[in-house]
Amino acid sequence: MTYCLGIITRSGLVIAADSRTNAGVDYISTYRKLFDFSVTGERVIIICTSGNLAITQSVITALERDIENQTETNLHTLNSFYDIAHYVGSKIREVQERDRPWLERDNIDYKCSLLLGGQLPGEKHKLYLVYPQGNFIQATKETPFIQIGETKYGKPILDRTLSYETHLEAVAKCALLSIDSTMKSNLSVGPPINLVMYERDTLVLRHRLQLRLGAPYLAKMRKLWEESLRQAFDAMPNLEWEYGDETDDIFLD
Amino acid sequence: MTYCLGIITRSGLVIAADSRTNAGVDYISTYRKLFDFSVTGERVIIICTSGNLAITQSVITALERDIENQTETNLHTLNSFYDIAHYVGSKIREVQERDRPWLERDNIDYKCSLLLGGQLPGEKHKLYLVYPQGNFIQATKETPFIQIGETKYGKPILDRTLSYETHLEAVAKCALLSIDSTMKSNLSVGPPINLVMYERDTLVLRHRLQLRLGAPYLAKMRKLWEESLRQAFDAMPNLEWEYGDETDDIFLD
Repeated sequence: MTYCLGIITRSGLVIAADSRTNAGVDYISTYRKLFDFSVTGERVIIICTSGNLAITQSVITALERDIENQTETNLHTLNSFYDIAHYVGSKIREVQERDRPWLERDNIDYKCSLLLGGQLPGEKHKLYLVYPQGNFIQATKETPFIQIGETKYGKPILDRTLSYETHLEAVAKCALLSIDSTMKSNLSVGPPINLVMYERDTLVLRHRLQLRLGAPYLAKMRKLWEESLRQAFDAMPNLEWEYGDETDDIFLD
Repeated sequence: MTYCLGIITRSGLVIAADSRTNAGVDYISTYRKLFDFSVTGERVIIICTSGNLAITQSVITALERDIENQTETNLHTLNSFYDIAHYVGSKIREVQERDRPWLERDNIDYKCSLLLGGQLPGEKHKLYLVYPQGNFIQATKETPFIQIGETKYGKPILDRTLSYETHLEAVAKCALLSIDSTMKSNLSVGPPINLVMYERDTLVLRHRLQLRLGAPYLAKMRKLWEESLRQAFDAMPNLEWEYGDETDDIFLD
């Protein structure tokens, strides 16, 4: 499994991914899932991948090849993020078209989802989710994050703390905690964690970070976070229990 | 969907459940899922249900009927919790045997899981998970909680804060937050929340609580918790970003 997360706020983007892949519990490997296609000072394009690894690697390779071969349409020539999302979706469709029948007849999951974020000159910074079918949606102010892969464990912390106005450094900590929560609760998501933070309108990806297993910051953060949660429990008033036998309306007669 | 949670610690048990059922997003109802079969001063038996509502209601009715009819084997005559788990499993098997073929041929999910906790005289307090197949497992000190239904959203807070030694009042707050997190992130889990706390060796269920939608305590707790999370972010050191262009080992060449 995989967990990738993109968050968009007024001041920029935070995008993060774990690095674990598994085919069953007895074949677990490490593969990068966060890819940087930026051109410093000109455009910022980050892509994260989840789903069938053979499919997502083929999609990433197709995107790279078009850049190398200077094809007319590629990630470095397109002039709007909408067109980039459409182009990335078309690459997914090409690979699916080629491989899907062979996987389907052996009941192998051929699906993949991509997370796509960044900024082009003359546009706002943007965040997209590209579906296995090649269609896509864009994150908005109302729901300023997109998750792909093993999304449930890491969602409560986002729902409780994030908004479009949250400060970018706080967003980065929140993203890391969301991934760490998922790693802690589900073995199929694991380090290293790759994380990038983009300040809007700079067109330069200045902040990047890789946290390996046992990274001191990760251990320190986890300890601090768990202490904070326990303190938060203690600070909360105790439950106001209903004593006595008046239980007819709650429990079985 | 449903979310039920049982936690066992050195000093007792906390068991909680939401009350939402849904058949698709356009048919959402409220049904109780926490049932008290205790006999004050003699035995404490709490059962929570998840899965197909027709199946779980039939199972609960079968358990009630055996008590009413004073059948030789029922929840009030059995002398060990292991036997109670086995007996509850056999009721699941009976209902499945009767209804499963009719549901299966229309592709309706017939599965159900039960959470079973309490204490009988002469035994320790215990917590079991009874599977749709009627077999069961018991919670141990190493993993002192059992979840059924929509379990992922509420798991990180348990993984991060709970142990067998946690104080029972703190456990109750943790259980409530675990359910509240799930409600906030997933519409298919909803109030009222039913929650009970049992102090071991008392054989009396003294602490019970029902929190309806908009209950002041629930709103207060949610507000306090979200403030605490934000303060915890602020207290955490900022990420130690890797600046510069040395990105070859992390990102695509």
